[in-house]
Amino acid sequence: MTFDQWTRQVLDRVESALDHYLPAADVLPAPLHDAMRYAVMGGGKRVRPLLCHAAGELTNATPEALDAAACALEMIHVYSLVHDDMPCMDDDDMRRGKPTVHVKYDEPTALLVGDALQSQAFVTLTSDVLGAQRQASLVRELALASGSIGMAGGQAIDLASVGHSLTREQLETMHRLKTGALLRAAVRMGALAGETPSAQDLDALDRYAAAVGLAFQVVDDILDVTADSATLGKTAGKDAKDGKPTYVSIIGLDASRALAQQLRADAHAALEPFGARAQRLAELADLVVNRVS
Amino acid sequence: MTFDQWTRQVLDRVESALDHYLPAADVLPAPLHDAMRYAVMGGGKRVRPLLCHAAGELTNATPEALDAAACALEMIHVYSLVHDDMPCMDDDDMRRGKPTVHVKYDEPTALLVGDALQSQAFVTLTSDVLGAQRQASLVRELALASGSIGMAGGQAIDLASVGHSLTREQLETMHRLKTGALLRAAVRMGALAGETPSAQDLDALDRYAAAVGLAFQVVDDILDVTADSATLGKTAGKDAKDGKPTYVSIIGLDASRALAQQLRADAHAALEPFGARAQRLAELADLVVNRVS
Repeated sequence: MTFDQWTRQVLDRVESALDHYLPAADVLPAPLHDAMRYAVMGGGKRVRPLLCHAAGELTNATPEALDAAACALEMIHVYSLVHDDMPCMDDDDMRRGKPTVHVKYDEPTALLVGDALQSQAFVTLTSDVLGAQRQASLVRELALASGSIGMAGGQAIDLASVGHSLTREQLETMHRLKTGALLRAAVRMGALAGETPSAQDLDALDRYAAAVGLAFQVVDDILDVTADSATLGKTAGKDAKDGKPTYVSIIGLDASRALAQQLRADAHAALEPFGARAQRLAELADLVVNRVS
Repeated sequence: MTFDQWTRQVLDRVESALDHYLPAADVLPAPLHDAMRYAVMGGGKRVRPLLCHAAGELTNATPEALDAAACALEMIHVYSLVHDDMPCMDDDDMRRGKPTVHVKYDEPTALLVGDALQSQAFVTLTSDVLGAQRQASLVRELALASGSIGMAGGQAIDLASVGHSLTREQLETMHRLKTGALLRAAVRMGALAGETPSAQDLDALDRYAAAVGLAFQVVDDILDVTADSATLGKTAGKDAKDGKPTYVSIIGLDASRALAQQLRADAHAALEPFGARAQRLAELADLVVNRVS
């Protein structure tokens, strides 16, 4: 199977699973469920679900177990986008090529969509396709990665940094929490959904995820200045306009491109112990670095 | 032990446990953790933790297991208050006798405090004092009760109802989700934290929780028109001002008082199979109905 075929297969599975794990649009309260589906379905690169499925190949996790983990990860990711786009945060009108939730619906709906998607992620992780032991360990991974010492904490540092100049180290800390923690959780949860991985294997996967997570952000910063809004599906040039510190603003465009390639190499190096079983993870590192949107 | 002594003992335990389960105020990002603690610590009636501890007496749950469940419940409750108070929702300045989080800090902080408290609730439920089996079942109870078919869903119905006249049945549906679901979860989670309760026992506890949950709301509506802001620790008369449908506006003050007493009797009746072991739950039903703030 080529990487493209594998990717398409996983994306199809995940789309069906999201449809399954989200309450139907006619379940009471229907307007809220409609808005939750608007936010989640039919959009996004689904990077976290792909990483989760790829990591699951290392531990022979079942596709059904990986679907549940992947959907929970995507629900958390989407909730963070919906809240980040709100007027009191980044105030963005466009996301994944569509009006953002508070524009399409209203602000209270956007707030509740985010809140309810977070809950739904934990409902999803406690479905029967995972045994109690794995449910508990995956819940802990996801809750730690999304909370105050993970994604939400990174968001708080990001907000406090607007208009301030950050050192490269401070910028890295912010991204390690804001986007890195959930990408790391995607890889770990994929592995933990199967046969229990060794501490050594989890360490190697953490090194891989750290490199991919940082590469993801560096490429985001590059695309913010080099791509247009239509290609990105969100407002381009926004970070510069908002005075947000980025890799491009701190180390420049050429050094940022070189850094992305270095991180790609680091990711590949971390996967060496796994050999050919880590093929999809290696290909995903390439995808993250070479993407154009 | 008198009920007052029991209550004080549980509240002391829960306060220490909240301090333990919340990240310290000097952990990075410190401003977010400071704000989370401001929202949670030293305030509120802690009704959900009390119900949880009282229900745990029926199944011999350990105090440590009940503390974790009680803290998770309170974190979810407080996150919902912080988000409900925001300008795009109820726009309230005062809560538990203190400035609300978005007034004391700012709106983005309030949004993130709520988001992070929800995550922290699930971190708390997966701590070692509960085994994997109980962790998984308590996570599922709490996630379902707080999400789109529970608390967040009730909030969505509440928002949609402002300025509309509701039937008594519609009002009841709204409250069954908005406040009832989490109160029910408090009772169930307390019981589930101990020896596995029978389906029959859980049914009886659900009937108790339904009566107490509705009584809680009826009394809230009565207090909104009869108490003053200083006693309530929040703005009195706000529902009437905002055109929100309440029991008092639909059935009147006297009928609301009679209904609260009827629900208290229903709660007591549901506890009959448990005999003296349910003493604290019975006393809590009285507390909910007779409270003055």
